[in-house]
Amino acid sequence: MPLDRRTLLTASAALTGAGLLPDAPVLAQAAPATPPPVTKTLAQYLVTARFEDLPATVAKQGTRSFLNWMGVAVGGSRQPAVSNVLAAMAPFAGKPEANVMGRREKLDALNAALVNGISSHIFDYDDTHLKTIIHPAGPVASAILALAQHRKVSGRDFLHALVLGIETECRIGNAVYPSHYDMGWHITGSCGPFGAAAAAGKILGLNEEQMAWALGLAASQPVGLKVQFGSMTKSFHAGRSAQNGLTAALLSAQGFTADTGALEGKDGWAQALSRAVRWEEVTEGLGSRYEAALNTYKPFACGIVSHPGIDAAIQLHDENHLTPDQIAGVTLHANPLVLSLMGKAEPQSGLEGKFSIYHCIAVGLTTGAAGEKQFQFAVVRDPALVALRRKVTVQTDPMVMTQKSDLTVTLTDGRVLTRHVENAVGSLEKPLSDAALEAKFTGLAEGILPPVQAQRLIRLCWGIETAPDAGQVAEAAAGV
Amino acid sequence: MPLDRRTLLTASAALTGAGLLPDAPVLAQAAPATPPPVTKTLAQYLVTARFEDLPATVAKQGTRSFLNWMGVAVGGSRQPAVSNVLAAMAPFAGKPEANVMGRREKLDALNAALVNGISSHIFDYDDTHLKTIIHPAGPVASAILALAQHRKVSGRDFLHALVLGIETECRIGNAVYPSHYDMGWHITGSCGPFGAAAAAGKILGLNEEQMAWALGLAASQPVGLKVQFGSMTKSFHAGRSAQNGLTAALLSAQGFTADTGALEGKDGWAQALSRAVRWEEVTEGLGSRYEAALNTYKPFACGIVSHPGIDAAIQLHDENHLTPDQIAGVTLHANPLVLSLMGKAEPQSGLEGKFSIYHCIAVGLTTGAAGEKQFQFAVVRDPALVALRRKVTVQTDPMVMTQKSDLTVTLTDGRVLTRHVENAVGSLEKPLSDAALEAKFTGLAEGILPPVQAQRLIRLCWGIETAPDAGQVAEAAAGV
Repeated sequence: MPLDRRTLLTASAALTGAGLLPDAPVLAQAAPATPPPVTKTLAQYLVTARFEDLPATVAKQGTRSFLNWMGVAVGGSRQPAVSNVLAAMAPFAGKPEANVMGRREKLDALNAALVNGISSHIFDYDDTHLKTIIHPAGPVASAILALAQHRKVSGRDFLHALVLGIETECRIGNAVYPSHYDMGWHITGSCGPFGAAAAAGKILGLNEEQMAWALGLAASQPVGLKVQFGSMTKSFHAGRSAQNGLTAALLSAQGFTADTGALEGKDGWAQALSRAVRWEEVTEGLGSRYEAALNTYKPFACGIVSHPGIDAAIQLHDENHLTPDQIAGVTLHANPLVLSLMGKAEPQSGLEGKFSIYHCIAVGLTTGAAGEKQFQFAVVRDPALVALRRKVTVQTDPMVMTQKSDLTVTLTDGRVLTRHVENAVGSLEKPLSDAALEAKFTGLAEGILPPVQAQRLIRLCWGIETAPDAGQVAEAAAGV
Repeated sequence: MPLDRRTLLTASAALTGAGLLPDAPVLAQAAPATPPPVTKTLAQYLVTARFEDLPATVAKQGTRSFLNWMGVAVGGSRQPAVSNVLAAMAPFAGKPEANVMGRREKLDALNAALVNGISSHIFDYDDTHLKTIIHPAGPVASAILALAQHRKVSGRDFLHALVLGIETECRIGNAVYPSHYDMGWHITGSCGPFGAAAAAGKILGLNEEQMAWALGLAASQPVGLKVQFGSMTKSFHAGRSAQNGLTAALLSAQGFTADTGALEGKDGWAQALSRAVRWEEVTEGLGSRYEAALNTYKPFACGIVSHPGIDAAIQLHDENHLTPDQIAGVTLHANPLVLSLMGKAEPQSGLEGKFSIYHCIAVGLTTGAAGEKQFQFAVVRDPALVALRRKVTVQTDPMVMTQKSDLTVTLTDGRVLTRHVENAVGSLEKPLSDAALEAKFTGLAEGILPPVQAQRLIRLCWGIETAPDAGQVAEAAAGV
């Protein structure tokens, strides 16, 4: 972070007094600190980065991000938002060369990026970079998988571009979080174009100047305000940011110029979209420290603050095979955010169920899961579950950290079961296992892709690094 | 404007003391002033507005805006930025049903909106809403003329939509200017999507809820940062905002939902994109006071602060038929902004010529014009003009208003010519005449469209209000 003026004044005065510095001019130069040329530095890194220098753990995390993205994109594909955007864009779409995941339609790559990005974010079940709350894969994977159906891209180049794109958007997010988010920006959509532009630009082989232009074109196209949470436009943000970043890279590849300091320049992105910025977050440790390695995957299709409680509930379910009629009472000790964000006592719809910790605990205890299926209308209205969730009490305590919980279940036979969760599954400390990621995928694809196709698609995603043609993975995700 | 907290406190205390109000709760509700529902109010106006209620002067100004837009779109059509965006987008474009002005290519309507919007802004010679510095027609006309080639729209409906779109973006601009502009936003691109969405939504016959969604989708897609001034991305802002607004309207027509309070809501557009807002600018006097009537048209293809000086120079040229060798010295008295924005003494390129008041005065005095042609490379490098501009002295005085100038020309024969300009041509006080608008158009179209076609296109634009099919005007602008 740049030193504030008062600190500089004090330090300068002390040094000047000690005869170590001449008078004011040094400070005068330092005060309206010229920001470092982060756009060019980032562009240079992106252009010169090599896959062989990527640690295997980072590449693996990229593959996990891709698998998770594919699952949520397939899972969301039959939702009204996807049907609506397809109906609106089909009359204007170009050559049908890129698949819509989980559906029969093909579109031009730019429209496919839009639609798949929307689909992947609808359930709010996508990946999360916890430091910024960015959902990183949506803008990036949606853009470059569609691009890979426009021009052949090896799986290795695809994976590398995916990691670099995620790295780019998360680093820029780190630089402006939380100020940028607090201003009202839906950070996935506002930082997403940078990630998509970086990844698509890498695949297109942009040179350093072109890559800086692409980042500049992305800077001019932020998407998304938090006011849209609760409407279809929330998921539009992920799709449009993918499309905007891909557009940026395609334009710059054709010589369409942009300012090469658009992130940090006067009247640039950070000035307009944030009240504070830490530039070193963008450039320090590029190539050695990877934000892309810090991606996480939601195990449950609802707000993350409920996950410690659901984790405990599922553990008790799995060990005790509980049924609703066995349970006399339930008490959850948790952070107050659980109630303020998810305190809906009597949810009436699937979406409301996602904002009810009572419903979440009930399905965790009695079904051992909290995927999309557990938030369907019929489940939320199931009388046995309604009766059970009325037996759930939530005791909040600000001293309980958000990733922890304590769950106590009193059975009708008098037994008392308890479970403490120190770190919820899906957190950085207790990441979702590969097997759990596969199970999540399978659950999302159920009813959309035949099981055999879903299993093949999982294998193709796991094998992306050695795939001869990344576009073939998209073909394999076509609906039947 | 909402009452401030102190006023409410005083009023509340007085009423409570008088026994007219209970204690604090009333104030507690009123204090964090809820903004008025401007998004819905605006949507309702847009949906219910009728062409027959539009004053004839406002409709006429809309027609003038359209003619001016057509001229700059044709004029910019052969610039590298247009060729580049066509090369980048062509592989993804859909059904070729909408023309690129001044060129042979046809694209799908969404891509045509993008390209024509870019073309119309390249020369910085488009229309200006002086209160906000918005260039209003670019985002709106580019969107709906393309839409009119996708589905038939009468000239009357087209013109009405154009006026409503301009009204929308300028009113929203008024509400946040100058804070929004000072933050770094290129206001044409950031407010433009609202104008394009409103106009396209009117043509699509959206209902009130859908219109509010369209405005919400536009709110989530602002385009453009001032850091891009000087690069091709500046003109991209006008085109992309047209495309974004059209996309917003098309989506909402298909039931794609957005928050219906996206402008004013918590974490909405104004919160994120401005530090101050005057909501009454959006909604007061809708249907009776028209910002669209305040559109102006640049007579000269360079920065507006130079226009009073150029106006004086051209007047002296026209009356005296000056040649460079007749002129011994020139002195311009003007506002200091003239030098700070346009002080380049030795311009080397056409673009640099646009930032040289010296060159502007020289071409005004000796050619009687300052159109695109006077800023071509060969003109800027013409030795006679180079010699003349070195004889130009600029004396600045902060007491001289920006729309005024005094020009003194000393001739080699000893005569002294002077001219005072009180309001530059093209200002609100001295608007460009219809004949001057036509002359501007003709100059822009020269070398691009055959003269006969240009004259026919001018007639079609003037006749837009009674045209049976607005799309036919676009056909008439196709390059040969």
